[in-house]
Amino acid sequence: MPISISKFFSKSLSIIVGGILALGWAAWLFGLQADNVPQARVQFPTGYREWVHVKSAVIGPAFPAFETEGGIHHVYANRQALAGLQSGTFEDGSILVYDLLSLSEKSGVSTEGARRRIDVMVKDAKLYPESGGWGFGRFMGEDRDHEVLTPEQQKMCFGCHQNRKEHGFVFSDSPK
Amino acid sequence: MPISISKFFSKSLSIIVGGILALGWAAWLFGLQADNVPQARVQFPTGYREWVHVKSAVIGPAFPAFETEGGIHHVYANRQALAGLQSGTFEDGSILVYDLLSLSEKSGVSTEGARRRIDVMVKDAKLYPESGGWGFGRFMGEDRDHEVLTPEQQKMCFGCHQNRKEHGFVFSDSPK
Repeated sequence: MPISISKFFSKSLSIIVGGILALGWAAWLFGLQADNVPQARVQFPTGYREWVHVKSAVIGPAFPAFETEGGIHHVYANRQALAGLQSGTFEDGSILVYDLLSLSEKSGVSTEGARRRIDVMVKDAKLYPESGGWGFGRFMGEDRDHEVLTPEQQKMCFGCHQNRKEHGFVFSDSPK
Repeated sequence: MPISISKFFSKSLSIIVGGILALGWAAWLFGLQADNVPQARVQFPTGYREWVHVKSAVIGPAFPAFETEGGIHHVYANRQALAGLQSGTFEDGSILVYDLLSLSEKSGVSTEGARRRIDVMVKDAKLYPESGGWGFGRFMGEDRDHEVLTPEQQKMCFGCHQNRKEHGFVFSDSPK
């Protein structure tokens, strides 16, 4: 009896350990799919409101993604990014911010309301080799602490930005 | 005859001198009407596009003065003006720029077009004592050389801005 109990536990242990190993192996394999490796979180770009204002645009109700993009957005660039906008080559440390505010109209004048979110692009060739050297981040409303983009959303950011490879993956040109 | 010629010239001289004096007097009286004394021309605010972006607004067709004000405008402040926006007191050297661009819509997205004009406010208490210490200027399109406001238009600028005396005659508040 003591032997069969021991065998029973030994078998159970083998199954458990084997299971853990198999799960670990599967997780490791899964992790090899680069798409699913979360990138280093982008930090809140403190002080960006005093950077150079590049351009603005207004997204109205006729735009398909009005629900998430509606309002007025401004693009800001730090010094390194400003140089990149001019040259088309962005050095590490370049940061661009897309600042989306709500917009409300009264008697023909549309004025800015609450901040909806900011999107951030940070250039760091070593940290973000899979996406042209750019890390993508998002902070909702006035939140500065929680970067919320999922790896899938980050992929979507780059999916669109890679159309501008000839301009360092950045849509904006130099300020007017 | 020599006497009457002399008298003739003497009378003529009196008339001429009198005329000049009268004209001078009239000009002096006219000049006393402060409204008609042109202020010192405001200079083009070189580099303002790299100053801090304060806020933006959109003027649509429903606005009465759409023809002259229509489009998207951005307000920029230099360092001194930025401090003033926060304190409500603007030191000499403060400059604010209202930058008006055309705006065109396509599929719900309104993007910036050509610059329509810039309006400038420069604080210099000694130069502009009649208008709260502010000089007002305007440059059309991309012109940097010709400040075009008439004294009457400058008065209109201040006529409206004096409603914000409690905030140093400036409409904008601190950037969001």
